[in-house]
Amino acid sequence: MSTVIDNIGLLVTNRDEGELTDAWIAIDGALVVATGTGKPPAADKRIDAERRCVIPGFVDSHTHLIFAGDRSAEFAARMSGLPYEAGGIRTTVEATRAATAELLTELATARMAEAHRAGITTIEIKSGYGLDLEHELISLQIGERLTSEVTFLGAHVVPNEFLGRADDYVHLVTGDMMKAAAEHASWVDAFCEVGAFDEDQSRAILEAGRASGLGLRLHANQLGPGPGAQLAVEMDCASADHCTFLSDDDIDALAGSSTVVTFLPATEFSTKQPYPDARRVLDAGATVAIATNCNPGSSYTTSMSLCVALAVREMGMTIREALQAATSGGAAALRRDDIGWLGAGSRSDMVVLDAPSYDFLVYRPGVPQIALTMIGGEQI
Amino acid sequence: MSTVIDNIGLLVTNRDEGELTDAWIAIDGALVVATGTGKPPAADKRIDAERRCVIPGFVDSHTHLIFAGDRSAEFAARMSGLPYEAGGIRTTVEATRAATAELLTELATARMAEAHRAGITTIEIKSGYGLDLEHELISLQIGERLTSEVTFLGAHVVPNEFLGRADDYVHLVTGDMMKAAAEHASWVDAFCEVGAFDEDQSRAILEAGRASGLGLRLHANQLGPGPGAQLAVEMDCASADHCTFLSDDDIDALAGSSTVVTFLPATEFSTKQPYPDARRVLDAGATVAIATNCNPGSSYTTSMSLCVALAVREMGMTIREALQAATSGGAAALRRDDIGWLGAGSRSDMVVLDAPSYDFLVYRPGVPQIALTMIGGEQI
Repeated sequence: MSTVIDNIGLLVTNRDEGELTDAWIAIDGALVVATGTGKPPAADKRIDAERRCVIPGFVDSHTHLIFAGDRSAEFAARMSGLPYEAGGIRTTVEATRAATAELLTELATARMAEAHRAGITTIEIKSGYGLDLEHELISLQIGERLTSEVTFLGAHVVPNEFLGRADDYVHLVTGDMMKAAAEHASWVDAFCEVGAFDEDQSRAILEAGRASGLGLRLHANQLGPGPGAQLAVEMDCASADHCTFLSDDDIDALAGSSTVVTFLPATEFSTKQPYPDARRVLDAGATVAIATNCNPGSSYTTSMSLCVALAVREMGMTIREALQAATSGGAAALRRDDIGWLGAGSRSDMVVLDAPSYDFLVYRPGVPQIALTMIGGEQI
Repeated sequence: MSTVIDNIGLLVTNRDEGELTDAWIAIDGALVVATGTGKPPAADKRIDAERRCVIPGFVDSHTHLIFAGDRSAEFAARMSGLPYEAGGIRTTVEATRAATAELLTELATARMAEAHRAGITTIEIKSGYGLDLEHELISLQIGERLTSEVTFLGAHVVPNEFLGRADDYVHLVTGDMMKAAAEHASWVDAFCEVGAFDEDQSRAILEAGRASGLGLRLHANQLGPGPGAQLAVEMDCASADHCTFLSDDDIDALAGSSTVVTFLPATEFSTKQPYPDARRVLDAGATVAIATNCNPGSSYTTSMSLCVALAVREMGMTIREALQAATSGGAAALRRDDIGWLGAGSRSDMVVLDAPSYDFLVYRPGVPQIALTMIGGEQI
C-alpha cells in the first residue's frame, strides 16, 4: 500500500538532499520511494505531519533487553553514595536464569514496545544474562523473535560457577556456546575490561565469533583506559562501545578505521561516572553512534531522546551531530545501509516528532515528543 | 462520588504514616478520606493500581507558562557554543505582545495538559512576558483561568521602552500595574539579579505587592552571588527561586527562615550553568522545593521527573529527598497545606506511577512513567 506523509515542516534525510522544508515522503510498504517538496504525489493513504519534523527512526545499536528482575535498590544506594553489597550483573543472571522463557519474552516484548514509543525503529539485543549454554540460548531465541540484530554476549562477565577459572569459561564460550549461538545471532560481543575479560580472552572470543560467521562488536574502555578500543580496530569490529576513556592513540586508531565509536551517555548518567568527550572523537574524524544501553544495572532507559540531550549537554556534540549519531551512526554501527536515512530505497522507518524541529529533542528535555513511529511502513 | 485506589504496591503519604505497602487510598470527590493497608473499604468506583506506586501529585511552584513563540534557535546556538544575537526574555515579550489572547490561551492550555500528563497536579504560573499594563493583564487573566496560583512578574526584565529608565519602570510596576494585577494574582515576584532588578528595586516591588495583599516570592542568586536570597528572607518570601549561587550566610539565613529554597535544575541543564549544591542547603536544614521553571528561554520542559533525576544526579539529593522536594516542598513554596501529601483531609491530587517505586523516576531517566494523574478526584 502506498502512503504519503505530507505537510512536513522539516524532513531530515541524512543524505545529500539534507534537510527539506515543506516536504513530503512517499512510501510503498517497507520502502521509501521518493521524497520531495511542494505538491506530494497521489497515494492510497495520506498522513498529515501538521508542519512537524520527520526524522529517520532511531537506531539503537546497543541494548541488553532480555532479563528478569530489577536493580533499583542498588541504583538508589549508588545515587545516595551509600554502600550496597551489589552483585551487579550476577544479580541479574540469577534472576534471569530463574525466570521462565515466557516471562522473559513478555518482559522483553514490553520493553521493545516502550522503545518503539520512544522512536526506536531498529534495536540490537544482546544476550549475556544467561551465561550458560541453556540460558544463553533461551535469550538468543527470544532475541531473534524480536529483532534481526541479535548479539551473543556470553562473555558479559565470568559467571559464579567459573570464578577463578575464567579461561575455562572462555573455552566454553568459544566452543559449545558459540556453536549454538551462531544459529540465532548475527553478532558476537565481549566485555573487555578489568574485572571482566582481558585483551587475549576478548580476542579469542572475537576470533571464534568470526570463525562462526558472526559480525564483531566490543565493550571497550568503559571504566578506565584499556586495550579494548585498539583491539576493536585490529579485529575490524563494527563498533567499539562505551569508549569513555580513550587515549590519543585510541582515537587515532578508531578514526583511521571502519569501527564506529558508540557512546552510551545514559550509562554515565546512571553510574555518576564522567561523560566521554565526544568532541575529541568527532574532530578526529571517527564515526560516532549513540545508543541507550538499556539494561537493569547501569542504564535502564529506552529514551534515545534523553541520550541525545545528554550527548549535547555533557559531551560536546551539536544537536545535529547527536541526531546523526542516534540514526545513521547507529546504522553504521550495525553495518546497515538501508536504515538511518530517508530517501528512495531506504526502509520506511521513521518518526514524526511532536515538534517543528529536532532541536526540540534537547530544547525540551524529558518531554515525550514522539508523535508517530513508523516501522517498515506500518504505524506502531 | 467515592473512589478507592487499591492494590497499591507503595503509597507515599509524605506524612507520619510514611510509605505504606499493600495499601489503598479512599477518595470522596476532591478530598482524601482515608489511607490504609490490607482490605480497602467499599466505594462507588475502584481503581486497581496493579501493585504500582502512588505518590502525591507533583507541585510545580515555578513556571512561566504563558507566552508565544519559541527560542529553539537561540538554544541550539548556545548548546553549540556559537554566538547568537539573542534578545533573551525580550524576544518572547515581543512575540507575546503580538499574539492574540486566544492564541496565548490555546498555547498555555496545551502546556498545562502536558504538565498534567507529566504528573503535575498544581502549577504556579507567572506573568512577565507582557511588561506593560495591557499585556500583563492579559497574561494574568489567562493564568487565573488555569490555576489558583497566579504570580505577577511585571519585574521580569526592564522592557525595551524603559531601557535606561529602570526606576520609571519600577514606578509603573509598583503603581498602576500592581493595582490591576492584584485583582487577578495571588503572588508577586521579581527577578533580583544583575541586569534585571537590584536589591532596592526588588524590595520596593515586594513591598508594593504586600501592600496590595499579595504573597511574596523572588528570583534570587541565579547567575551569581547577590542580595536576593537574604532579601527573600528579610521580606518573608514564601520562596527564593533558583539559588544556584549561595554563600554560607545566605544558607544560614534561609535555614533559619520559613522561606523555601526552590531549585530549578532543568535550567542549569538547558543553560549549561553549574548545578547548585542542594546537599549543602538540605544539611543546613532549609526546606527545599524542585520546580520545572517551564519557559521558552532557559528551561522549556514540563518534566518534573527529569528535574527529580537531575537533582539526584547533579545536586547531591537522595531520590527520597528529591521526590519530597517535588511534592511537599513545592506545596511549602506555595504555603499550601492541602497538597503535597496524601491522607485524610488532603486534596485528592495524586499520581499512579508506571513503576513499583518512585526510585524508578531516576532509575529509568527519560522514560514516561506517569500512568494516571488525578486532580481533585478526577482522572486527567
